[in-house]
Amino acid sequence: MESAIKINVVRNILAANNQIAEQTRRELRERKITAVNLMSSPGSGKTAILERTLEKLHRQIPCGVIEGDIATTLDAERLIRFQAPIVQINTEPFGGDCHLSASAVRQALADLPLDKIRLLFIENVGNLVCPAEFDIGETAKVVVFSLPEGEDKPLKYPLMFRESKLCLLNKIDLAGVLDANLDRIQLNVHQVNPQMKIIPISARTGEGVDEWTEWLTQLMAL
Amino acid sequence: MESAIKINVVRNILAANNQIAEQTRRELRERKITAVNLMSSPGSGKTAILERTLEKLHRQIPCGVIEGDIATTLDAERLIRFQAPIVQINTEPFGGDCHLSASAVRQALADLPLDKIRLLFIENVGNLVCPAEFDIGETAKVVVFSLPEGEDKPLKYPLMFRESKLCLLNKIDLAGVLDANLDRIQLNVHQVNPQMKIIPISARTGEGVDEWTEWLTQLMAL
Repeated sequence: MESAIKINVVRNILAANNQIAEQTRRELRERKITAVNLMSSPGSGKTAILERTLEKLHRQIPCGVIEGDIATTLDAERLIRFQAPIVQINTEPFGGDCHLSASAVRQALADLPLDKIRLLFIENVGNLVCPAEFDIGETAKVVVFSLPEGEDKPLKYPLMFRESKLCLLNKIDLAGVLDANLDRIQLNVHQVNPQMKIIPISARTGEGVDEWTEWLTQLMAL
Repeated sequence: MESAIKINVVRNILAANNQIAEQTRRELRERKITAVNLMSSPGSGKTAILERTLEKLHRQIPCGVIEGDIATTLDAERLIRFQAPIVQINTEPFGGDCHLSASAVRQALADLPLDKIRLLFIENVGNLVCPAEFDIGETAKVVVFSLPEGEDKPLKYPLMFRESKLCLLNKIDLAGVLDANLDRIQLNVHQVNPQMKIIPISARTGEGVDEWTEWLTQLMAL
């Protein structure tokens, strides 16, 4: 009984969500804004990667950021120094939602100077499950997969890896210390999503940042 | 409209969940079984800690395990060698739930030889958000917080840290490499939950495992 009601309502919510996401996607396309939905487990380094990205790109390409968190404005504060327009969404007042929804993103868009933005980063709530289920109108989904999380994560959280176009394999500077099996990681990613591009990156050392910003530039040209 | 419907149903589901959780709690108490609900982000080391724990404890105290994952039986397979009874719950057939529910745990309990178990570990789905919202009838909630996730996690995921009795600060062997600020971590944990006990631990080196099993023994004596 419980689960029947739940599935029913979740379907309705997803349909409503997807409708709003499509509106957003259309509007962003008309405005020639490329939007990247950045997703990962908590603490995988989404904000640290954004710091590196804005540092490198924002002078050439006008960027904007939507920060999604359950609580606090800690992530947004870390990005203020780059002087890109930022809006923070806190989901705590909305029942502590563990993901961004299309309507939350739509509200945030209204607070951004869209005519001054070409590349929009949407940092989702730290969660390897639910964000993958909710279309928010992005151009592309990108999953950040942090090396210390272990090789099996693509197999255990397949939807996230199936939905994403790119996998940023972060904290690659720890590969030696962790004795990580990079071949196994690549194998596991491609078992779930054979087309997935993987960029090893380190927000700490800057390794891989060039390849990532190159990928972004290509995405914008599509 | 969307959110009004959602909140309504979520409340119903939570009420139904809590009722089943209370039944489980009563039954486990009558059977003198202590149940630990182990929660964390994906890849924080819950299974690795369980490996260390079973290795040390299972000969003295009969343990049982319920493994919660969206997909795969990878975690359960890692624990088979300890010959403790294990049941794997996969939430994928139930819409890919990002947390265990009281009813899923109740079904799993029916498959365990409860008269042979004194200490039951329930490894929740890797997620720092939703598992904290669902009572599954456990004796105590324990959060595993992995050092590479960064110092701000307690502030950003407050419910998880508020609901848990103990914080296992895992991958403590990486403290030097990561240049981690342990005082700041402790401060952030206690800002959210002033009573929280923190045990630094490394499933890799075995550091802290004695203190953790000592804590478990005390929990069983309560």
